[in-house]
Amino acid sequence: MPIKFEIEKEIPNALGRAGKIETPHGVIHTPAFVSVGTKATVKALTPEQIKETGAEVVLANTYHLYLAPGDLRVKEFGGLHKFMNWKGPMMTDSGGFQVFSLGAAYGKQISKIAKADEVRSEEEIAGSLAKVDEQGVTFKSHHDGSLHCITPEKSIEIQHNLGADIIFAFDECTSPMEDFKYQEEALERTHRWAQRSLEYHKQQTTNNRQPQALFGIVQGGREETLRKRSAEFMRSLDFDGFGIGGSFAKEDMETAVKWVNEILPKEKPRHLLGIGEPEDLFMGVENGVDLFDCVAPTRNGRGGTLYTSRGKINIRNAEFRDDQEPIDKKCQCNVCKNYTRAYLCHLYRAHEMLGGTLGSIHNLYFIINLVKKMRQAILENRFPQFKNDFLAKYWKE
Amino acid sequence: MPIKFEIEKEIPNALGRAGKIETPHGVIHTPAFVSVGTKATVKALTPEQIKETGAEVVLANTYHLYLAPGDLRVKEFGGLHKFMNWKGPMMTDSGGFQVFSLGAAYGKQISKIAKADEVRSEEEIAGSLAKVDEQGVTFKSHHDGSLHCITPEKSIEIQHNLGADIIFAFDECTSPMEDFKYQEEALERTHRWAQRSLEYHKQQTTNNRQPQALFGIVQGGREETLRKRSAEFMRSLDFDGFGIGGSFAKEDMETAVKWVNEILPKEKPRHLLGIGEPEDLFMGVENGVDLFDCVAPTRNGRGGTLYTSRGKINIRNAEFRDDQEPIDKKCQCNVCKNYTRAYLCHLYRAHEMLGGTLGSIHNLYFIINLVKKMRQAILENRFPQFKNDFLAKYWKE
Repeated sequence: MPIKFEIEKEIPNALGRAGKIETPHGVIHTPAFVSVGTKATVKALTPEQIKETGAEVVLANTYHLYLAPGDLRVKEFGGLHKFMNWKGPMMTDSGGFQVFSLGAAYGKQISKIAKADEVRSEEEIAGSLAKVDEQGVTFKSHHDGSLHCITPEKSIEIQHNLGADIIFAFDECTSPMEDFKYQEEALERTHRWAQRSLEYHKQQTTNNRQPQALFGIVQGGREETLRKRSAEFMRSLDFDGFGIGGSFAKEDMETAVKWVNEILPKEKPRHLLGIGEPEDLFMGVENGVDLFDCVAPTRNGRGGTLYTSRGKINIRNAEFRDDQEPIDKKCQCNVCKNYTRAYLCHLYRAHEMLGGTLGSIHNLYFIINLVKKMRQAILENRFPQFKNDFLAKYWKE
Repeated sequence: MPIKFEIEKEIPNALGRAGKIETPHGVIHTPAFVSVGTKATVKALTPEQIKETGAEVVLANTYHLYLAPGDLRVKEFGGLHKFMNWKGPMMTDSGGFQVFSLGAAYGKQISKIAKADEVRSEEEIAGSLAKVDEQGVTFKSHHDGSLHCITPEKSIEIQHNLGADIIFAFDECTSPMEDFKYQEEALERTHRWAQRSLEYHKQQTTNNRQPQALFGIVQGGREETLRKRSAEFMRSLDFDGFGIGGSFAKEDMETAVKWVNEILPKEKPRHLLGIGEPEDLFMGVENGVDLFDCVAPTRNGRGGTLYTSRGKINIRNAEFRDDQEPIDKKCQCNVCKNYTRAYLCHLYRAHEMLGGTLGSIHNLYFIINLVKKMRQAILENRFPQFKNDFLAKYWKE
């Protein structure tokens, strides 16, 4: 077995649990927040700094690395771990979300949280950079316009070359604005792709590769029947764990996660893809999610939006120019121990790169540590109380 | 005494020496390369990373910090050391070079090394952002166009507020393209400013401030009579050490440094301002310079120009995409120990901030360590041989 998952404690009367995943590169204590290192780098941080945030695991993006520097190049260098000098557990995603964001969502700044007013015009559909068919997805590189095709087999081949500990089956992430008919078609296609991903993965494991765990991705948008059908289907296949995908309307996320996790087998880990705001992390953990990843902490960190136990602040604001306090008095990260809000405010206003680095370290520490505290609360049988206490202060923004 | 300078060993038949400067924040082993932290941050590096390069001392820029975040704000935070979390020795410059680059040199991308074809048009002079008179320099902020005046007294006041261990007298850095008459006028003015700087500094030291060493700056461009007159004048004043300023034509640098250091008192340290290329560092050390600072290692580092023992390389070049070697096989820095040229090439091409960070760490380590090796060579009586060996390989670019 490429990974071993063990549940240590459950939340009474809920789906949530604390556990650990053993991988060839070390243990992930769950629930855990996974740092995103899109192009084989967690933006603005060295691996030493990633570690300093408490991160146990990094997720890189298949789509980006396929285009540059190329998965074969990474393979020649002994895989992602060696290439980027990260010694702990790693994951790669399937590329499916990038297909969505380049296709249906291209140019619309759609994130994992859907906005209510997302309606595509005919022009937008015609101008999209990706075309989906049974075989896979054909798309234009955002670098140079060159044409590429990623099939389920190709996605797994790329992920084999990259060599992460946990990889994902190729999927289509639909827009929540698509109608039921399209959602259903896309879901059935994703299921066929999941089977093809798994078959290709099994065939290739006869090679002398390091063992890699393969997770299947449950889709189905906001539709109860589709989500449940997808969870049933995925549980029937021999995956090592599961992703829960989708671009969610925020209010639909909880029900979708519940529908899915009530069906998925308890003994395998579940990863809620692309979700990372504190309130969503509590919801996910409570409802049986073991892993989360999201660019929000680092993206916000580079932009100057910093997490505190009383909500997010924009550190560029004039009110912080003379503020001698740390970002968050309760935070134990190295940034909060050593720097004032005023210094950070100065760095961001002066466009100094160090601002983005320190902001990213703090934000990652804050979010990773928040999920670690949830884990501790589960182990100590006080998750509901911890959740209520944290969110009561957090929302007092 | 705010600092104590001790000579440990001299280069036979030359002006060069190895020594140490004790400051209130620790010892600087000389000759030493000083890292530049213009806006209270060595660009792209945390203080831990600065330390990792072997840096013992950081120089911040008075002009920039006066404008933002403001010297009074830094003072309120307990000075630069606390503000930026750098615990070792610090210097601030006088602001004089910025006056030059905003005035005579504005918009011409003139650096410390003058180009041969620098001739100012009338329009350029009229459009310059700074006006020099006996009182001081009046200039427009490059931020918001607001009008400011820095006098010698003001420069020292700002530097007192910033609180570095070593500060500089206010000076005018002329363009080497100015005629003798202007050079002489400017020099005499710089001498009067030096006296005013020193007087103001002495008056203010009755306050309860931490002791700060004041260095006077020798100017005089490429003119032998002026350089010598300036050195004679400066040695007559009670400075703790000296800067050698100027925008040099590269071929004039050595003679100017020699003229000056033959006159300056042996027992006080000398800082060649704004110089940092390997060949210039050898020249300076041989001719009795103890301290150097330059933005080149970090600026080059951010741009992808990296130092190696066989000359500089541009790591973005396609030839490095598959290069599994470190930047420099002989380098012992953490970047060379942990990363390939291919990974760095990928980071720069992908516009990842980590590229600039790793490149800056390597370059600073390379240059700082080169000067440390010169020091070691002086102590072991083999400076000329070390210089010849290094430059023979370095020029084989």
